[in-house]
Order: sequence, then structure tokens, then C-alpha cells
Amino acid sequence: MTNWDLRVGDVPDPVPDAGQVLARVLACGMCGSDLHMLRFGAELRETMADVEAADPDAPVDPLRPQMFEPHGDCIMGHEFCCEVVDLGPGVSALRTGQRVVSLPAAFDGDGVHAVGYSNRYPGGYGELMVLNEDLAIVVEDDVTSGVAALTEPMAVGVHAVNRSGIGSGDAAIVIGLGPVGLACVAELARRGIGPIVGADFSPKRRALAGHLGCHEVVDPSDESAIAAWRRVDGSRPLVLFEAVGMPGMIDQAMRMAPRDSRILVVGVCMPQDELVPMVGIGRELSIQFVLGYTPEEFAETHRIITDGTWDLEPLITGTVDVDGIPQAFDDLGRPDEHAKIIVEPS
Amino acid sequence: MTNWDLRVGDVPDPVPDAGQVLARVLACGMCGSDLHMLRFGAELRETMADVEAADPDAPVDPLRPQMFEPHGDCIMGHEFCCEVVDLGPGVSALRTGQRVVSLPAAFDGDGVHAVGYSNRYPGGYGELMVLNEDLAIVVEDDVTSGVAALTEPMAVGVHAVNRSGIGSGDAAIVIGLGPVGLACVAELARRGIGPIVGADFSPKRRALAGHLGCHEVVDPSDESAIAAWRRVDGSRPLVLFEAVGMPGMIDQAMRMAPRDSRILVVGVCMPQDELVPMVGIGRELSIQFVLGYTPEEFAETHRIITDGTWDLEPLITGTVDVDGIPQAFDDLGRPDEHAKIIVEPS
Repeated sequence: MTNWDLRVGDVPDPVPDAGQVLARVLACGMCGSDLHMLRFGAELRETMADVEAADPDAPVDPLRPQMFEPHGDCIMGHEFCCEVVDLGPGVSALRTGQRVVSLPAAFDGDGVHAVGYSNRYPGGYGELMVLNEDLAIVVEDDVTSGVAALTEPMAVGVHAVNRSGIGSGDAAIVIGLGPVGLACVAELARRGIGPIVGADFSPKRRALAGHLGCHEVVDPSDESAIAAWRRVDGSRPLVLFEAVGMPGMIDQAMRMAPRDSRILVVGVCMPQDELVPMVGIGRELSIQFVLGYTPEEFAETHRIITDGTWDLEPLITGTVDVDGIPQAFDDLGRPDEHAKIIVEPS
Repeated sequence: MTNWDLRVGDVPDPVPDAGQVLARVLACGMCGSDLHMLRFGAELRETMADVEAADPDAPVDPLRPQMFEPHGDCIMGHEFCCEVVDLGPGVSALRTGQRVVSLPAAFDGDGVHAVGYSNRYPGGYGELMVLNEDLAIVVEDDVTSGVAALTEPMAVGVHAVNRSGIGSGDAAIVIGLGPVGLACVAELARRGIGPIVGADFSPKRRALAGHLGCHEVVDPSDESAIAAWRRVDGSRPLVLFEAVGMPGMIDQAMRMAPRDSRILVVGVCMPQDELVPMVGIGRELSIQFVLGYTPEEFAETHRIITDGTWDLEPLITGTVDVDGIPQAFDDLGRPDEHAKIIVEPS
């Protein structure tokens, strides 16, 4: 990506620094956030510049990753499983040939960099990456590289469920059954939350949600998620997971939410959005925005995957090489047939 | 008010039913929500009709008060202190001559009615009201009627602070120091929360906030609330109370809120509003919308007032009779000089 434009081309091989390894990408999931960044990134960058200009004295979070400059090359891809092919100076815990996953961050003397949204550190849509030894987790033999690459999006669901504070006796609605919505469903089901009601226009995605433990799935053009919830339960305290991330979705969730319920905004909506505060006020709703996960949640998610608790292989609905990425982005924009498309660049 | 139009006129005296009393209004506070209802009520009613039409099977909360029809007369005023002048059938706990406050709801065979926003039950901008014996609290002699009438807006602050979950070790910013913002300040100060930073353009309101225990007050045209907070603290977990209730304020609070902080929406914003979800997502903010209070909180607030914990007399910045209400609404729209204007209809 350069200046919000998707391009396929050659770049120099990255070089690992102290404590880093060179890694060949075996599998990298394509994320809706990348699609949104291409579409809405310019607008988002302008908003964030406004926010910063209005408060120039705001302290900078040292752990906030540095993002790309739009005029430079940025190789996206932040859901990856790699094979270690070379060791940088001082690396002791990894060896070549090992398969690893890592949360998409790289540390060096200049701070933290958002792998997949960095000009310096290439993401997993390219053949080679540089990873920090300290963040890498070795993948066990019986986990496929595609499923290992799902650690990242599944961790988003684990984090959202953690932040929701949902507990036994509560019910959940998941709006949007793309990879992030499916991750929420899988984690809610693993914790025994019920009923879980999922809503998506795509039959394929609804079937995947059912496969992961969603108790009731609806096509919103037939029945609203809230009507389905009332049909199967209607009494428990309710948490609504908004996992679409497009303008209008928070408003839609607020309009369906019963009194005192909680809305978890898991979808990453980058443009300006509209809502009617009075709808939230009258029902005393709460909205929790979430993003990402902690390193502990990432590791815990990978452990759950390794344990085989979730059957994630069916989530992988397509595989492309680097040349297939532009077409795959188009396919993701028409999500009827796809959940997760995996890039295999090598 | 008829069809969103403010009028002064004569209406028949209301008649108390079983368990109700006839009461003469001694003092009734004018509320910004009444001003907002006149300005934005038509738009709000349309939105709410949309919400209901989209989900006609939503169960009706039996405790949700019935609201006025715009074409009928509605006597506003929901912050009142009255003298009991006549007893309906079966009333045993009250007697004539007693001064009482009550939360603004009336029960009868048809359900619950929002006193002050009802066609059937006149509010406190008129001379006579009907109150339910069970909801009335007798006012002690040393509490003036004007201060007793402040029970209602102060209860809004008590409720907001309760819902915020704020605790010792946390800091607070209160944006907007009208009566609701001042109620938040007073309750936060009573609980020993600090620092409390308050922001308002009006010097009068800033002085009142300081009087009620606000540790730092700022004019947002000189210094932003968040800059002031960083100057006096900058490290504690922060709760931001949005007490203005106009479009753009939630967005403003989100843009100034530090990572992981909580925004309490106490101001009643009725029109459509805009915000940038990504600002909340990037910082994992939460937004809690609140409205009103419980009967227990109303009674507790009146107990705090009776104990003399707060010095509220200075909040009363003006007194008008019924004929003065239209002018007083204009004055409230230019809030430099006013906090609470009290109507004395009798």
C-alpha cells in the first residue's frame, strides 16, 4: 500500500536487528481492517491529526505503535504464521526451521512499530518479515499454519469478551459474523455463555457461527437479532457485540438494545458516525470500545487453539498468493462466500 | 406547552384520586431538559417513533412513564416542593399544611405518568399538582422550599456518580457546570473524589462549582479541561462527566479522554449527534448514558440536603412567577448569569 493505493511489487529483503529473526511467511490472514484502511485511512488520518492538533500537550504513550506514513511503502498483513529462516544477533530462544506466531508489533531502539501498518517492518502479505524473538510463540506440529495465523483475529474476540465483563447468566448478541464476530462467538461459547444469537446476511457465515457454538443465527432481512433473542430468551442481561465496523452500526445496536444493556464495539469503524444520544440515555446503555488484545491474551488464545478447543479450519474459506491479494480484497468486500482468506506468499 | 409552543394560561384544577393529594406548588426549578424539549422535542418524538416502529414487538416496560401528546396541554416542571392542601380518598400518611417533595411520577389505574411531561398530571410550573402519597417525602422546617426543590436535579448527580463506579483514587472532569454538572461536582466532592476539574464558559457557574468543592475550574476558552487536569494531576484513572447535553459534546469528551477512561453522559442531548468511533476504539473508552435516579437515590439525596452537607442556596440565581417563565426560558438559553431559576407560581 502506498498513498492508500494497493500495489504488488518487489521490495528489498528486511534485515533482523539484535533480538530479531528473519521469517518466511507461511500464512497470513486478510483482515477487514486492511480493507477499511484502504477505503477510509485518509479520512482517519485527518481526524487523528485534528485530535492531536487540538491537544498538542497530550502525553505520548510509549507503547503506542508507530504507524506508517501514507507516501511510503507499507506491506500490510498482521495475522501471520512464519518459519524462522535466519537469526539476528543475540537470538537464543529460537532456531531456524521453527514455525512461530507473534502479535504484530516490533520493538527496536526507536520504539514500537505496528507490523502490518509500518513503513519499516513488512507485514505478512510479503514473503519475508522481521520478528522480535521475545514476542514469538512456537507453533506445535499439529496446528496448521493457516489455523495458527488465526491466533490474531481470535485474540480480538477473546479480548472483547474479557472487556465485556460478561458472565454466566448473561446472554449475547453478535452483530456481524465475519472473522471478528466469529471469534466473539467462539470465545462466548467456550465460556458457556448462552444463548448466543448471531446475525449476518451471509448463509456461509451463519453456518460457521453455528459450527462454533452460536445457539441461534438469523438473517437480519428475515428477523432482527433482538427479535430472535426475545424468541429464545428475552430475559437475561444482554451484551451486544457490534462486529461490523461500518457507520450506522452503533446506532443500530443502540436502537435494538434493551434497557441497561452493554454494547461492545469490536468492529473497527474509521469514518465519522451518527447516533441519537437520547436512545442511549433513555435506556441507560453503555458502550465499550475495544481494540486488539494484551500479549497475555494473545498467548492464551494460541494456547486455546493448540488445545483444539475450537475447530477453526472451516473459517479458512480461501487461499491466495501475493498476486491474488487485490482480487481477494474485492472478494472480502462482498462477503457472502468468505470468512477468512489466507495469503500464502511463499 | 402545546405543540412545542410555550403558553401561559388557565387550566381546570386537578383532582386527587385514591392515594393522592392536591398540592400547591411553593417552588419549582426550571430545567434545561424543558428548554431542550421545546427546541428538540419534535425531532426526538420522530426518532422515538422510528425506534418503536422498527421493533413493534419490543416489550413495554410497565414502569416507563407515559409521555404527553404534543397536541394536548402539558404543564412542565418536575423539580418541585409543594404544600399539601387537600387529601384524596384513603390518604393516611400526609396531612394538609405539610411541605413535600416527590420524584416526578404519578401512578394510577392507567400506569405511571411522567409528571412535568404529562397531559394528565400538571407539573410544577402551575399552581396546583396532584401527588401520590406513597412517593411524597415530608420536608423538614429548616429546609427552604427552593432548596427542597433542588432534590430532583441533585438526585441526577447522585445517580450519575453512582453509575460511574468512580472510587477513591480516581479523578473527575465535569464538562458543563449548569445545575446537573454542579450536582455531579457536589456529590463527587461529598465522596472525597479528587481532583475534580470543572469547565464552563460562565464565571458565575465556575464560582458555584468552586463553592461546592470543585478543586480546579477552567474557562474552556482559556484552557481545556484535560490540560487543566494534567496540570493538577494527570495520572489517576479519570471519569469525564458530560453535563452539557448538546450535539458535539460526546465527541469533544472522547477527543480529550485519556486511554481507558470512562465518559458519563449526564447531559440530555435530544438531537442526532456525530462522533468518530475510531477515537474511542483507539483508546478503549467507555461511554455510560444515564438518566434520572431511583426512588432510593431521590430519598437519599433529600436526606443529604436535610443534613446540610451541601450549601445549595447560592445555586438559586433567580425567582419568577408563572408570567415570568417565557422570559426565564430565554435567560436559561444565555446561561452566563444563571444556575437555577425557581418558579413560585402561587
